Order: sequence, then structure tokens, then C-alpha cells
Amino acid sequence: MLVKAETAREVCIAALTRHGVSAANAGIQAELLVQAELMGHPSHGLQRLPRIIERIGNGVIDPVATGAHDWRTPSLLDVDGQMGLGPVVLVQALEEAARRTPETGVVLGAIHNSNHIGMLSWYVRHFAERGFVSIIVTTSEALVHPLGGRRAMIGTNPLAIGVPATPDPFVLDMASGLVSMGKIHDYAARGEPIPDNWALDAEGNPTTDAAAAKGGAIAPFGGGKGYGLGLGIELLVGALTGCALGTDVKGTLDSDKVCNKGDLFILIDPAHVRGTGISAYLDEIRHIAPIDPASPVLVPGDRAVRVRAERTAKGIPVNPDVWRQIENYTTQKGKLS
Amino acid sequence: MLVKAETAREVCIAALTRHGVSAANAGIQAELLVQAELMGHPSHGLQRLPRIIERIGNGVIDPVATGAHDWRTPSLLDVDGQMGLGPVVLVQALEEAARRTPETGVVLGAIHNSNHIGMLSWYVRHFAERGFVSIIVTTSEALVHPLGGRRAMIGTNPLAIGVPATPDPFVLDMASGLVSMGKIHDYAARGEPIPDNWALDAEGNPTTDAAAAKGGAIAPFGGGKGYGLGLGIELLVGALTGCALGTDVKGTLDSDKVCNKGDLFILIDPAHVRGTGISAYLDEIRHIAPIDPASPVLVPGDRAVRVRAERTAKGIPVNPDVWRQIENYTTQKGKLS
Repeated sequence: MLVKAETAREVCIAALTRHGVSAANAGIQAELLVQAELMGHPSHGLQRLPRIIERIGNGVIDPVATGAHDWRTPSLLDVDGQMGLGPVVLVQALEEAARRTPETGVVLGAIHNSNHIGMLSWYVRHFAERGFVSIIVTTSEALVHPLGGRRAMIGTNPLAIGVPATPDPFVLDMASGLVSMGKIHDYAARGEPIPDNWALDAEGNPTTDAAAAKGGAIAPFGGGKGYGLGLGIELLVGALTGCALGTDVKGTLDSDKVCNKGDLFILIDPAHVRGTGISAYLDEIRHIAPIDPASPVLVPGDRAVRVRAERTAKGIPVNPDVWRQIENYTTQKGKLS
Repeated sequence: MLVKAETAREVCIAALTRHGVSAANAGIQAELLVQAELMGHPSHGLQRLPRIIERIGNGVIDPVATGAHDWRTPSLLDVDGQMGLGPVVLVQALEEAARRTPETGVVLGAIHNSNHIGMLSWYVRHFAERGFVSIIVTTSEALVHPLGGRRAMIGTNPLAIGVPATPDPFVLDMASGLVSMGKIHDYAARGEPIPDNWALDAEGNPTTDAAAAKGGAIAPFGGGKGYGLGLGIELLVGALTGCALGTDVKGTLDSDKVCNKGDLFILIDPAHVRGTGISAYLDEIRHIAPIDPASPVLVPGDRAVRVRAERTAKGIPVNPDVWRQIENYTTQKGKLS
């Protein structure tokens, strides 16, 4: 079924406010989920809403919190997320930082005690459209194994970079696992084997059995470099937020544990962003000869912009079961609340 | 032949000062080259010295410059490298930033008009040993092709991250190409074929001919993610330093062009680094069961520390031709100077 973005937004907001989320907070959380659908990332879209509502019901998300801001120095914003909704806490922190950057040029934000922040590209794209350069990293429960190791010790630890450009900003949003655990679940649900380099089973042996991989560990992307990057992100976030590390991280995949990962951002004021040549350079890349004539070279973010245009016009393809569940939340309390 | 680090340092300093480099500047440049040898990265070691001296002779490195510092805001340091030696300009900028971080918590440094900064791990390791978290990125001449594209449009764009830990800091230093052009040159010199996924030839076709790859383009590491990361680094550095981009970048591989790439760093004050648990977490990773019992799991930086201990004791293996050339520079002007 196809659902218009505006309808999806309204239904998400209704479901969230029905479960105690303030109107302002519901608007932010709903927008993130709908943007993920519009950008073609349903794994970060509406299907996340039931868990969020379950977590509210279990008291591990505070639906009205917005985060407490502590400026440790003029440029360093420490945020206690107060167990708030991840996107709410992050957006409020980014806006607080954006009010400060005209003075300091750069703000480093370190967030702890918040919840899952979802699709990172939404945040960096939004701020790039306002002229800011930004970098965001976050951690998650351990799902990725160190190179050559038999078990998961590192989060999927995505990195996002936003740089202003025309007609659309450069937007990178990449996890440091070779694939997502969601994709492995999809293979398992279809009974299909996975490629032999994707994951280990629970005993730490390489497997092509998607069901076995669900209890195991995802490979880092790009061998030793991707392993190093994912671990580097885990340590940067840990060192600057004081959050839990590795297998101590909880609350990003479950419905009932306090979330103890961290988020980190760097925001740079538009006055210090020198855009000269960036848009032309990106266009030059798009127009070099492709190896496959049918596949023009893309710049990170291009595909999402195209998908967004299509889905804004035609609607978002939504799983009817997910949609029914969300509609039910608008009129009744979730099963765990 | 084996050369003691102290001897290598002295000979490098003598060669540099013979060519107009101030004693202080020579000490920094020499230390970087020797540390690269000690850490097991000869491609960034003594063999770089002849080009540096040629560039001084050609007037595209100013041997006494240290960089002009412009605090655009309390936290944003803009550096005109004044065509100085890359390590000199970067070390002076990092030290200037380190004097500021007690007040601001974080400093973003943006350097233009400087030269090749060499092995990034040296800088982040040094500051991590002093308690700082740091990130450094830099650009180079275009050597890497965009994913699916036929020619080089992106620098090798390394990223380094340093995080304090005991007994040794976490030190990541990775380029965004799948391999270095130096490695392809080594294969070509030996007449050996390269794997078919490493590089394209000058016409943009995949090749296993190392000699043909020298005039072509290196693949990004890790597919679309490594491509995105390398391009993201190019844009971050470009946006914040105003440096040249892509195929406009010169002066990192040649001996006679003004270097127009950029460098970027983030330095975070030790007072805001929360080390709790990081060292224990890294040890936990080192001790998980390895897939290959003969290959224990390593943390980025481990191998370099081990090699450094060996080479500090036994000496650095040096190519006799390279050593003779450097010794000659201590008593006579280089051919181009």
C-alpha cells in the first residue's frame, strides 16, 4: 500500500501523543521516521515506531524530555538526554549548538542518556541546507566483530557527514558493518542464504545461514580499515560522552533497557564554510565516464534525493501490517504500556 | 643495512639544515621521517627526504616558515602554512591549539598553503600520549576513482584518530584508497601482477598490470562506503580550508608545484576526555578468540608499537641507495637546488 507522507506524519504524531509524547516532541520523532521512508530507508522508518512506544510504556523513554544542556566550555556542549526520544534530544542539542556557532565557529556536542537517533542523514542534510558543515557519529549494541575475531564487540557505529552544495548537499550516512542486521533478518525471513563474508554464527564461525547469523556477528566493512573506523567511532563517542562500550551497550535493540550508548556531533558555522568549487567538483564526479554505461557515477545522497521526489509525489510504500499496528496505536495503548 | 634511529635522525637533520631548513624545523621533519621508519612505514620515511630537498631547491617549500595563525573565533584556528614543511606547520598549529583547549575544550584547525604532512599516526599518537583526543584528515592529488567511475577524482585522503589508553593509545591511520600508489609501484618494480580489484589503467579499465595501473586510478577501499568516506574527507577539508579539490590538487607527488591541498584537525582537551573503561575494552578485544589461532586480534596501532620496539633496539632497515643519497645531501646541495 502507498501512504502519503503527510498522512504518515499525522498518524505517527497521533500514535505518539496518544502515548504521552508532547506535541513538539512527536513532531520531531514523526518527521524523522517519515523522512527515512521518503529517502528509501524503511528499516529506519515507520517500523521503528512500535518499539519506541513499547519503550515509552516500559519507562525507558521519557516522552516529554528534551535533554539538559551543560556548556562545559564555550564550544563544548554536554547533553544529558534525560532518557528522551533520540531525535528530540539530538535536534534540541543541534539547535542549541547552532545558536552558539556564530560566536565560536565550531561546537562539539556529546550526548549521553538518550535513545536511538535513527537515520543520521536527516540531521546533517537539514543543517547542510542551512549552510552548516556537520559530522555525527553514534554507537549501538555490539553487532560487529573485530577483524579476525569470533564475536561481536563493536556497534554498527554509523558516521554521517553533511557539506553544503547545490542543488543538494553532500550527505554521507554509512554504518561501519558490512551489512545491517536488518538485512540479515530479511534474508532469514525469506529463507535465503547470505554471502559467506557477511557474518559469523554464534560460535564465531563464518556462515551462509542467515538464521544462524542473527545470533552471531556482522563483519566490518572494508576489512581492517572499516574495523578500525568502527572501533575509532566507538572510542571517540565513549571518550567524549562517557557512555558504555562494546557488549555493555544496551537499549538500542530491546524494548526494556535504559539506553546507554552515546552520540557525538560537530557543527561548524556557515560563516566558516568556503563553498567555492564544491558543487562544480561534485558535478564533475557525476559526469565522469562510468565503467558500466548504464550506471552513472553517483555522489552520496543523490539516490535518496531522487527517491524522496518519487515518494513525495506517489506516496510511501508501507507494509500493511506495520501500518495497521501504527493506526491501532492512535486509538489504544500499546500492548506493553 | 640497519641504521640506528638516532643516527638516521642526525643525518636527516644535517641534510635538511644543509639545505636551508632551520634547526627547529629540521628536528620536526626528521623526527616524522624516522618515526615512520620505526613504525614500519618506510613509504613515509627516509625515502621522502630527497623530494623534500628538491622542493626546497625549487622554491615550493619555504624551509624556515612555521605558518601564520589566525584565530577566526575562539575555537577555530585558520593557518596559512606559508609554503612551509608540512610537519612543521601542523605541529606548530597543534601546539597553538593545545594552548587554547583548556579554555575552549575543542579546537578545529584548518591549514592551507602547507606541504605533505606524511604519516598522520605520529601526530595523533603524540597528542593521545598527552591525554588529547584528536582527529586529523588531509587531502592529496587525485589518485582514487569514484565507485563505478573510470578515472581518479579523489585524493587518497587519510584519516587518523587518536584516543588515550594504556599502555598505548588507540591510533588509527588509514587512507581511503584500497591500496597505496606506492604499493602499486612496488609491484611494477618487481614485475608482478596486482589483484584485479585494485586499480584501473589510464583508459579506465580494470587491470592486473601494475605498470599500467601507475598511470590510472586506485579503487576506493570498502566499495561505496570507502568511496563516500574519501569524498567526504575531500569536501570537509575543501569546505573548511578553501583548498583545491580533485584533479586541481598539485604538489603532493611532484617536486616543483606549489602544494594546494589542505589539512584539518580537531583537538580535544584532556579535561574533557573520559577514559573510564577504554583501556579495558581494548584489552577485551585483544583477547577474544581469533578465527585463526595463529593470528590474535589486534587493535589499530598495536603492530606499529611492536615494530617500533624492535627497530629501536635493532635499528631501522634502510635501502642503501636511499641512505647514500641522504648522506650526500649532508655535504652537497641536491641536484635541483
